[in-house]
Amino acid sequence: MIKDQDFIKNPDVPGPTKEEVRCIIMCKSEVTNEDVVVDIGCGTGGLTLEFAKRAKTVYSVDMNHEAVDTTKKNLNKHGLTENVEVIEGDGLDILDKINSFDILVIGGSSGKLPQMIKKGYEKLNNNGRLIITAILLETRAEAVSSLKNLSTKTEVVDVSISRGEITARGTMMLAKNPVTIISAQKVI
Amino acid sequence: MIKDQDFIKNPDVPGPTKEEVRCIIMCKSEVTNEDVVVDIGCGTGGLTLEFAKRAKTVYSVDMNHEAVDTTKKNLNKHGLTENVEVIEGDGLDILDKINSFDILVIGGSSGKLPQMIKKGYEKLNNNGRLIITAILLETRAEAVSSLKNLSTKTEVVDVSISRGEITARGTMMLAKNPVTIISAQKVI
Amino acid sequence: MIKDQDFIKNPDVPGPTKEEVRCIIMCKSEVTNEDVVVDIGCGTGGLTLEFAKRAKTVYSVDMNHEAVDTTKKNLNKHGLTENVEVIEGDGLDILDKINSFDILVIGGSSGKLPQMIKKGYEKLNNNGRLIITAILLETRAEAVSSLKNLSTKTEVVDVSISRGEITARGTMMLAKNPVTIISAQKVI
Amino acid sequence: MIKDQDFIKNPDVPGPTKEEVRCIIMCKSEVTNEDVVVDIGCGTGGLTLEFAKRAKTVYSVDMNHEAVDTTKKNLNKHGLTENVEVIEGDGLDILDKINSFDILVIGGSSGKLPQMIKKGYEKLNNNGRLIITAILLETRAEAVSSLKNLSTKTEVVDVSISRGEITARGTMMLAKNPVTIISAQKVI
Repeated sequence: MIKDQDFIKNPDVPGPTKEEVRCIIMCKSEVTNEDVVVDIGCGTGGLTLEFAKRAKTVYSVDMNHEAVDTTKKNLNKHGLTENVEVIEGDGLDILDKINSFDILVIGGSSGKLPQMIKKGYEKLNNNGRLIITAILLETRAEAVSSLKNLSTKTEVVDVSISRGEITARGTMMLAKNPVTIISAQKVI
Repeated sequence: MIKDQDFIKNPDVPGPTKEEVRCIIMCKSEVTNEDVVVDIGCGTGGLTLEFAKRAKTVYSVDMNHEAVDTTKKNLNKHGLTENVEVIEGDGLDILDKINSFDILVIGGSSGKLPQMIKKGYEKLNNNGRLIITAILLETRAEAVSSLKNLSTKTEVVDVSISRGEITARGTMMLAKNPVTIISAQKVI
Repeated sequence: MIKDQDFIKNPDVPGPTKEEVRCIIMCKSEVTNEDVVVDIGCGTGGLTLEFAKRAKTVYSVDMNHEAVDTTKKNLNKHGLTENVEVIEGDGLDILDKINSFDILVIGGSSGKLPQMIKKGYEKLNNNGRLIITAILLETRAEAVSSLKNLSTKTEVVDVSISRGEITARGTMMLAKNPVTIISAQKVI
Repeated sequence: MIKDQDFIKNPDVPGPTKEEVRCIIMCKSEVTNEDVVVDIGCGTGGLTLEFAKRAKTVYSVDMNHEAVDTTKKNLNKHGLTENVEVIEGDGLDILDKINSFDILVIGGSSGKLPQMIKKGYEKLNNNGRLIITAILLETRAEAVSSLKNLSTKTEVVDVSISRGEITARGTMMLAKNPVTIISAQKVI
């Protein structure tokens, strides 16, 4: 995993997704080098870069120009531009334009999560994985509710991480904000 | 409970202990208005002020001059000076000078936790409560280990709190650093 | 606080609310001996008993006969029957029959949380406190959403507790399930 | 990752390490198919099986006969016996007999953690990774303290996971016990 501190950051862009959370998402996604991945709400590019190292193709989307720019800078910094297309735009529109994919990650949805899940599910290949990362109370419930009517195997995991900062006085545990990872495999 | 934001803060002084953690400590201390309390490592005064509202007398100690000053300011702000003596000095020395007490809280020990627990236990009234709040990995283990040879009923509780910040987009959960509360009742 | 193990339990009844969570709820409720409290979804009686010790009157409600029975047994065991009325019935109906109250706790709502919050808010005295404890993802979001249109000061706190079990090998930390406490003060 | 429920379990054997924790350990270990791995305190075999899928060779050790047996059964079940040697014995003795390795995981140490870390570090190849998983308060502090005098890049991460159980009433979050992962890269 790329270390959190090895990402270029922009104060107006959220992320990167914390290293340990990226780990778990990579596991849940079961990504292989034959997979096409769509990453909506790519922010700083944390997940985009990890998928770039493991997948065949990554479409990385954000409606925030600064996020698109930061993700591109991070791909450049880590030499991972080859199989990634970074797109500025609305995730829902972009989903229309991509023919099919194996993994869809939604990290930001600008209030359109139910629609994104619905459209994403339709276009997802069978056995494909849909992963939503939620830091808002509302998004967690909305994701689970939207998945209920679709034919999936769904898992919900709350992840809380604290990192030890080793100081002269001892090891101080510093909490990172909790994230809920909702992952669903499409099973027709 | 006094709200976290209602404390005067000093960037060089840790604290205040978060509201919910103060709640739990007040419960574990079983404080009544007949109790004498010693609060070592008072920092911003979070626990000192809560005990001031509930106990007979509070001795509040810190070796950091800024902490002593901040605790005094907070006592003044909240009109709670009457039954509190704030003392600048080494907790271990101060414990020598106070005859007896019902509750001892150790929130900072400058590397002398085992000695403080030993001396504090000796001077604690029977059925008195000794509470250690630990944010360091090492302090947690040291506290439990120091209590092992003493006749106490000991409890260890790890507390992780996240607070919701209600924004236009939704309720974002923000984590506070975890605290371990070790509480022991002296039972001869 | 009453220790968790000091409650009579029934395998068909949830609870008691963990000691540390009861602590925080007592704090957030700002209960005094002049307050009338309604506790809907009282389960094992954890909160009912704590309020019984601190409030003027407690109306404790559950639609599960076993829960009502267990709460009564616990009130008896701890000698706290004097100011508590335990009622078997639907929380929403009971709210209609109680004239006014200072504190309303909703720990179970059988799918009627928005209605209960609405009705509870109407009948709550000004400056009264409405507290929802949520263990379901959906309830958390629903509670925050229902409170949004009401004139309240709202707080959301996620509480995760682990308790240390002191064994020969060391102190093993055992997690309790996380609870979200949503507390709102009515401010007209 | 292998799902938790896909492991054969034995009531006298701890584990398997939870899926999400296995994820993070695989990440922290930076395992490749050229690595030799030693897994001390293999328990149910959770980590052994994951390393078997990714490393060149795995030596899996436990002093509990039942654990050795359970790990073997799980390797068989998942067809992963080829590159794994499961050894019943004392981890410290076994470390003496293995010439060199790239990854050492210590999940159980029977009170000999400092010695295991010291000996393990000596035999670890340069840039090799030493990972300790700690569920005891004491082990956490002991691991950090033992690593302090060795030339390593050390990280400490506390991981708390709750899993959502989707029920008719909603998604109930069930906590798993917290684990601390201490990972150190040998850097001479």
